[in-house]
Amino acid sequence: MSSRIRNADFAAKITTAEEAAAMIQHGATLGMSGFTGAGYPKAIPLALAAKAEAEHAAGRPYKLRVLSGASTGPELDGALAKAEAIGFRVPYNSDATLRGQINAGDVDYIDMHLSHVAWMTQAGLYGKVDYAVIEISGITPDGKLIPSSSVGNNVAFMQCAEKIILEVNSWQSASLEGMHDIYYGTRLPPFRSAIPLVKPDERIGSPYYEIDLSKVVAVIPTDIPDRNAPFAPPGEDAQAIAGYLLDFFQHEVKMGRLPAGLLPLQSGVGNVPNAVMAGLCEAPFEPMTAFTEVLQDGMLDMIDAGKLRMASATAFSLSPERAHDLNERAHIYREKLILRQQDISNHPELVRRLGIISMNGLIEADIYGNVNSTNVMGSRIQNGIGGSGDFTRNAFLSIFLTPSTAKGGKISAIVPMAAHVDHIGQDVQVIVTEQGLADLRGLAPRKRAVEIIKHCAHPAYRPMLEDYFERSMKDSFGKNNPHLLNEALSWHQRFVETGSMMP
Amino acid sequence: MSSRIRNADFAAKITTAEEAAAMIQHGATLGMSGFTGAGYPKAIPLALAAKAEAEHAAGRPYKLRVLSGASTGPELDGALAKAEAIGFRVPYNSDATLRGQINAGDVDYIDMHLSHVAWMTQAGLYGKVDYAVIEISGITPDGKLIPSSSVGNNVAFMQCAEKIILEVNSWQSASLEGMHDIYYGTRLPPFRSAIPLVKPDERIGSPYYEIDLSKVVAVIPTDIPDRNAPFAPPGEDAQAIAGYLLDFFQHEVKMGRLPAGLLPLQSGVGNVPNAVMAGLCEAPFEPMTAFTEVLQDGMLDMIDAGKLRMASATAFSLSPERAHDLNERAHIYREKLILRQQDISNHPELVRRLGIISMNGLIEADIYGNVNSTNVMGSRIQNGIGGSGDFTRNAFLSIFLTPSTAKGGKISAIVPMAAHVDHIGQDVQVIVTEQGLADLRGLAPRKRAVEIIKHCAHPAYRPMLEDYFERSMKDSFGKNNPHLLNEALSWHQRFVETGSMMP
Repeated sequence: MSSRIRNADFAAKITTAEEAAAMIQHGATLGMSGFTGAGYPKAIPLALAAKAEAEHAAGRPYKLRVLSGASTGPELDGALAKAEAIGFRVPYNSDATLRGQINAGDVDYIDMHLSHVAWMTQAGLYGKVDYAVIEISGITPDGKLIPSSSVGNNVAFMQCAEKIILEVNSWQSASLEGMHDIYYGTRLPPFRSAIPLVKPDERIGSPYYEIDLSKVVAVIPTDIPDRNAPFAPPGEDAQAIAGYLLDFFQHEVKMGRLPAGLLPLQSGVGNVPNAVMAGLCEAPFEPMTAFTEVLQDGMLDMIDAGKLRMASATAFSLSPERAHDLNERAHIYREKLILRQQDISNHPELVRRLGIISMNGLIEADIYGNVNSTNVMGSRIQNGIGGSGDFTRNAFLSIFLTPSTAKGGKISAIVPMAAHVDHIGQDVQVIVTEQGLADLRGLAPRKRAVEIIKHCAHPAYRPMLEDYFERSMKDSFGKNNPHLLNEALSWHQRFVETGSMMP
Repeated sequence: MSSRIRNADFAAKITTAEEAAAMIQHGATLGMSGFTGAGYPKAIPLALAAKAEAEHAAGRPYKLRVLSGASTGPELDGALAKAEAIGFRVPYNSDATLRGQINAGDVDYIDMHLSHVAWMTQAGLYGKVDYAVIEISGITPDGKLIPSSSVGNNVAFMQCAEKIILEVNSWQSASLEGMHDIYYGTRLPPFRSAIPLVKPDERIGSPYYEIDLSKVVAVIPTDIPDRNAPFAPPGEDAQAIAGYLLDFFQHEVKMGRLPAGLLPLQSGVGNVPNAVMAGLCEAPFEPMTAFTEVLQDGMLDMIDAGKLRMASATAFSLSPERAHDLNERAHIYREKLILRQQDISNHPELVRRLGIISMNGLIEADIYGNVNSTNVMGSRIQNGIGGSGDFTRNAFLSIFLTPSTAKGGKISAIVPMAAHVDHIGQDVQVIVTEQGLADLRGLAPRKRAVEIIKHCAHPAYRPMLEDYFERSMKDSFGKNNPHLLNEALSWHQRFVETGSMMP
């Protein structure tokens, strides 16, 4: 028996990825582990991609319906998309090949709130789940499963699936054991109860998955690393954004509207959030907490700096160096990190109760503060809404962070009207760009427009926005939310035609 | 002492509405009771309107900042708006005069999720509340306040306000006493805890408001009736919509996706919901429950028919006949009705936990299922988002009901792109019109479009929608959410120019 598969019943089911893939027929629905490139199965999807290519070469159809936690890695979405083996995908994707197929109209993609996927799967809204394909980091002698570097929807997928295939990944640190908090109290209505968590650092479950052995049809040992992408150091814009935000936090603490240790932080992934976390390492706040989806390098830095007391999430998303570091020092981090399933990490009930400070990126915001997080020019999906809706609507303080332009100035992040809306004005309290910070709390739409244009728009676009807003105030059908319908989307149309929003 | 003011300390503060209004200065922020035309103060706003007119006649400014639960009645929003005495209004309005002033750009209006207003007020986001002006139905000998026909944000307003003015309305039934459940467990973070309610019929608080007597500066006896509007009997379209929905419920029960008594119902107000409730009086479901904002005639009918076991809400909205009936038989209804504050009736935590079936109206839905509930042609506010966001995103089953056209066919309720978005596609599961029902669960955007156009659009507009969708599938920048940006809002622009969306 391998050192990671310490139970004989499970060990008896060890087989190869190819044999497991052979069971999975065209049209099958797979509930796969994986969240932000962490903890996704690798060997089976690679074998499925090879099988799909062989089937296609033989003139037979082979497409799968793939559910996951969120984004995965090149071995899963990448390889399956290249093999044209994905027909349907829920709830989030960041793979470029698959994105291209979705935007070509070839793959059905449901971009869903991450907290909703587990219950929707349990309620049967994505059909019967044929196989749960789940990466774990080990199996205990008494047959419990030690989760991997993400939890995602694994609980729901293993509960719903007819059969379970496990990848036991020995690349994952053995010291992940004990870091997870797996809660088995979720139900479908009318049997739901209160989730008994009132502080981010509480544990309400068990460190292990407990499953029905009889559903397990294959166990595959692997040692393939997670997709751990290196982080670029924050650029000037990111540092400027972080600077405005940290000043704002200090002001809010001074005004008594935030506690001295702030409130539990939620942060999206990327360059700007990393700059914010770097800033928080130096900032004069009492030790903070995080209740978020993803643990990034910046949060481990904050823990090392003594600034973050603990962090709760559903997945890691670390650079290779930090992943190595985590493995080396897991015994230290284990006391300060908790990984939960995503229907707990993102649960509206908990986000509201804990009073999260949410910090997310965007594609564009309009002058009234409606935010598009997903569809470039209103039609071309970038990644997906992810957990931003779960956090934003229920946050105590909902903040969006973005450079004011993209594509070398050819796209303005502040537009007259968002070409697609993910977050309505009611859910957007603060917008920060490298130009400044707009505090929209307590302001009606027309006053929001003044603040957003003045503080957030790039100077190259600001006069055009002022002009649009002024003419809207004169000529709009209604002046609650003034718009000129003939022009509202003209910036986007110009980009589609000319490659730039700038006339 | 009046029979309604049974405490000497409060009785000692009895004064006239005019004297109370005299205290309230230009620029004051008032937190007023009132939800859907029930339980709003009447005498003070009328006196404030008279004062405003006198001040304006004397060349002095007089504008107030008005917070409430939701909509009120002619004596409050109507009279104050006619006197041009409202400068700022949160979170919902249905008064025509005030609507006109908002849409003319003269009044700042924050259209806010109804569940958020209490905590946002407590967090100071609407500034200091100078006066809470609250209608109650009586004062007990030990100085507790008996709530009136709505609860709304009264708890938060009385907690936050510097001073409290009470209207004790003897028109309200004395037998309202005991019907309310006032919960004092809400806090700002980091002090929030789980709300201990797991069934719609549980009581978690007290039947009374308990307040600081020293804050009370005036007590005004009144007997002015609530605005109880008669309901028109449901027309053909409403009955067709209800028919499709009831068939769908039966199908869902048969498929095992809904229990035999359904799940707690939430229903918007109006002709279509009343038709649905009339249908439910005849439908073969086990006794149901409601966890909603507003108790309408139809729900009392369902109780009388033995079909509704109990209903929880934050306000009544009854016809004059049914209001009379309620007063006559309050001892019966009191066992089956619970009125709560709106941050409980609409709380995302509870809506999600209870697994609500939400049923709301809309102004328009686009072919991908994004819903505009608020701004006609994207700019002119109708009423507001109300609780529809609170319920829709967290519902187990979120349903929108609407006739497929408005204004005699000049407006299509199904449009290429919504000109304003309140509910994103992720939160919209089912759309029903008199043409049919589109079940969007588990469908990606392009498949949603097919269902919505086929089942919901009016035949007069259907070919135009099909044409738009087909051409979008060819020519859109991205085909995840295909759109032609030059045309997406052209139907709205045509309406603004010609008075009809039809070419």
